[in-house]
Parts: sequence; C-alpha cells; structure tokens
Amino acid sequence: MFDPVDGAVERARALIDQALPELERLGLLRGANAAAVGERITGAGSLKQALADVAHVQENAPEKIEVKRALFAELDPLAPPAAVLASSTSAIRASAFTEALKGRARCLVAHPINPPHLVPLVELVPAPWTDPRVISRTRALMAAVGQAPITLKREIEGFVANRMQVALMNEAFRLVETGVCDVADVDTAIAEGIGLRWAFIGPFEVGDLNAPAGIADYCARFGGMFTTIGKDQAEPPKFSDALIANVERQRRAVLPAGQLPARSAWRDQRLAEIAVWKNQSVRASKP
Amino acid sequence: MFDPVDGAVERARALIDQALPELERLGLLRGANAAAVGERITGAGSLKQALADVAHVQENAPEKIEVKRALFAELDPLAPPAAVLASSTSAIRASAFTEALKGRARCLVAHPINPPHLVPLVELVPAPWTDPRVISRTRALMAAVGQAPITLKREIEGFVANRMQVALMNEAFRLVETGVCDVADVDTAIAEGIGLRWAFIGPFEVGDLNAPAGIADYCARFGGMFTTIGKDQAEPPKFSDALIANVERQRRAVLPAGQLPARSAWRDQRLAEIAVWKNQSVRASKP
Repeated sequence: MFDPVDGAVERARALIDQALPELERLGLLRGANAAAVGERITGAGSLKQALADVAHVQENAPEKIEVKRALFAELDPLAPPAAVLASSTSAIRASAFTEALKGRARCLVAHPINPPHLVPLVELVPAPWTDPRVISRTRALMAAVGQAPITLKREIEGFVANRMQVALMNEAFRLVETGVCDVADVDTAIAEGIGLRWAFIGPFEVGDLNAPAGIADYCARFGGMFTTIGKDQAEPPKFSDALIANVERQRRAVLPAGQLPARSAWRDQRLAEIAVWKNQSVRASKP
Repeated sequence: MFDPVDGAVERARALIDQALPELERLGLLRGANAAAVGERITGAGSLKQALADVAHVQENAPEKIEVKRALFAELDPLAPPAAVLASSTSAIRASAFTEALKGRARCLVAHPINPPHLVPLVELVPAPWTDPRVISRTRALMAAVGQAPITLKREIEGFVANRMQVALMNEAFRLVETGVCDVADVDTAIAEGIGLRWAFIGPFEVGDLNAPAGIADYCARFGGMFTTIGKDQAEPPKFSDALIANVERQRRAVLPAGQLPARSAWRDQRLAEIAVWKNQSVRASKP
C-alpha cells in the first residue's frame, strides 16, 4: 500500500486491522486467520518502494482523469515490465488515461464494488489496446482471491453493473416524478419483492426460471411487454430541484441525516451476513 | 378456496399441506403451527359457497381480460356488499374488467409476487373508481398477515415492481445484444454485485447511503451520469430471433432444460432462507 497523503497508509492499516478479526469470526477469510492475512499487507514509504517486484497494481486514486493520467505515467516506468496496471475507477475509461503510455497494453480497469471485502464483483474493462492476456491474467487473479470477475468486451459508459443500476433507478425516480408511488413504497417493491432473488441469481436466470421452457419461452411470453414499457421509459427523469427535494424530504422522514453513518454500518453488517450465507448455502448447494 | 376445474382445489390443498410443515420448521408461520394454519383454509364446492360471509376475495383466474370480466361479473352480486374484490393479476388494469360492475368501487388489483408465501410484496393498484377506503383496508389486511403492501396512486402498465425489473432486464438484453458482455457475466454483475443490497434495501435507500450527505447529495454527484446513460438506454432491445437464440444457447450451456424444475425448487429454498434471515436479522436489528 502506498498513498502520498500523510498518514493515509497508517489509517488504512488501522481500518484493516480493525476489520480482520470480525471477518475471521464470520469465516470470510477463506480459512486463513486475521494475523496471517494482516501480515500479507505492507505499507510502503514511496511509490517506487511499493512497486518493487509486484505482479499486479490496483490504483485507487481520486476519480479525476488528470490525476489518473499523471499517476499511470509514474506507474508505467516504475513497475516491473510484467506487472498488470489496474484502475479501480467506477466511471473513467482506461483509454482516457493510458493512451500515451509505453506499457499501455498492460493497463485496464478492474472496478470493485463497495465494500469490496463483502461484495465480490469486479468489472474488468479493457482499453482498445489492452492485451487480452492481461484481461485473462487479471480475471484469474481476482477469481483466485475469491472475487467474482466479469469481462466487458469493450469500454462503455458506466460499465455493466452501474448501467443496470441506473436503468432501475431512473425508473424509480420516474415513478416518484410522475406521482405513481412514494419513495418508501418504491423501495419496498425492491427490498420486499423483486430484489430478493437478485441477491443470488441474475436477471437472465430469473427469466429462465420464470417460464416453463426457459428464457426463450420467457421472451415469447413477455417480450411484447418489455418493448411497450421500454418505450414508456425512453425519456430519463429530469432530476429537477422539486423532484430531488421531494425524495430528500421523504428519505429524511425515514432516516434523519445524523443516522446515515449508523445505517451504512448496519447495511455493511447485513452484507457480511449475506456473504456468509452465500458461502454456506448458495455456493454449497448447487443446482 | 374455489376453482371450477375438477380436482384443482384438492391439488391446491395437497400443495399447501406439503408446504406448511417446512414453513413451520423455518419459523415462517409467525408463531402458529402447520395444523392450525391448515385449518384456516377450506375448499368450497361452488363459487357461491366460497363467497358466503367473506371479507376479502383474492381472484387468481387466468390472465385474460375476458375471463376476469366474466368472473368479476359473477363475484359482484354473490359476495357480501362489504367484501373487497381483489385481483392477483400481474399485468391487467382493474379498470379493464370492473367498469360495468355495480360494486366497482370495491374492486382493485392486489398483485402478489411468486412465490407469495416467501416474497412479501403485494402491489395495490386502484381503478379510477376504487374507493380509497378499499385501498386502505386491503393495505391493513395485507400488512396484518405479514405481507409488504405498497400503494400505487393510479394504474400504470406493469405496475411498479415489474417496471423496475423491465428497465433492468432491458439493459441486460441490450448489453448482450450490443456484444458488451456475455449472459453469465451480466448475471454475475447482479448476483455477486449490486443485487446483494436489493435483498434488504431499495434503490432510494441505496443512493441515500452512497453519498456522505444522503440522496440529494447523491443526485448532485451522479445525476449527470444518470441522464447520460438514460439517454443511451432510450431504445428498447429488439428481442430479435438471433438475440433470443443467443441468450437461450448461453443459458442452456449453464443449465440444461431438464434441470429447470430442480433449479426453480433450489431458488425457492434460497428464498425461504432469505425470509428467515430477514426476520431474524434485518427486521430485528434496526437501524
């Protein structure tokens, strides 16, 4: 670990040391104990020191193109020639900050989801010049450490997970904007309804299991409705001041602003329980 | 329970009797035992007999307007004047089959999600002439039996849950149609990524907890991206034969058609585990 901000590496170290015993208790360290995992993580005093002999670099700098560009220009000459240079960016294409690099073929986006120790997904997104072997090596590495990598064939705005999240959330805002439903009821529709399945099966499998003969049968039954509703959803919601104030007011009535951090911690505890359940049941009980 | 099809009531009875002991074992009968719950359910030999002295009718006839219209025309004169007449339809508006009824003010859609004993959501959708007291009474009844009712202010194609599901699934199909990602990786993006949170918090709460100052802050940070991606998603996917065949081929490589029923049963077992977990942890551990 390296961070140019004074004290940042020490603060990260403290967060990790605080989290590891709980992860061990929950059985989320894949059989290792907290001390052994903690020893694998070393703080470095300089970028050069951090990059000595590495196989994989995971960059987590601020989400600004110019910051990424300057940092990758430093990383490329310092890192061993065989090392992969991966960015954690959730929104910037690798092509926007790696084009001019000598080692641009070893650069890609490897986008984790917060909190990454509880949510396995990692989106691998190549630039046009990324070597396919860099993708496959990074995919193998992520799978080996227990993450769930997916591969995009090319760069696209929002990658894959956020594109689906945006499609759903735009409809959520649209339902409030057009006065069909209030905020709490929209949330209930997901959290007590169609969201339950998505914790362990994806949308194609949901459709596959929701028609007697599978996904093609599902398309034959519901494709017409998908097109009708899709056309209805062509115009994104406006995010007007009035809409945002309405949603904010409804959320604050449920959760005062001062309780946001406590509720976020509560959410992460529930995510940890889901991670435990998925290991013990979902992955252990195929089909 | 009444069904005009020969033997249907007996088959439903057998399914219920088979399911109840497992629900009792899992603690999903809200403190009651299987025998006591079973005794609450009575088969009737005729529609007239089924409707004697009822407070609430839940219609589950085939999803055809003419079938619903004919059935509601029978229900209205037979049911006690104070009874609510609710349809389980997932796709037909109550206005399409209740307009001509004398008792149309007591009719509405109360749309459950399959399997309804494991997924609590019920969408309440009024026709323009539904009495608001009928909505509030049905909402109270559904909450009292442990379901999670939501109220739509007016009729809309697909109601609320399926509109959000369609928005997400249209993007899933679009990602495969445009060659960005394969079917299994799209599913992983949900089932190992953004879907985990949706099992216990809805999209507005997800956004509220994903920016330091809550949902208005979230809109300020990401609203621009929501609009850009939303415009990109204006055109629904085509559901061409080639796209459907591609998705079907990829799903059958993962799950042969013969295993669809076993996998559906597996899914329902996992949904039961989520229901148990939500009782024991999510609802028991606020905030």
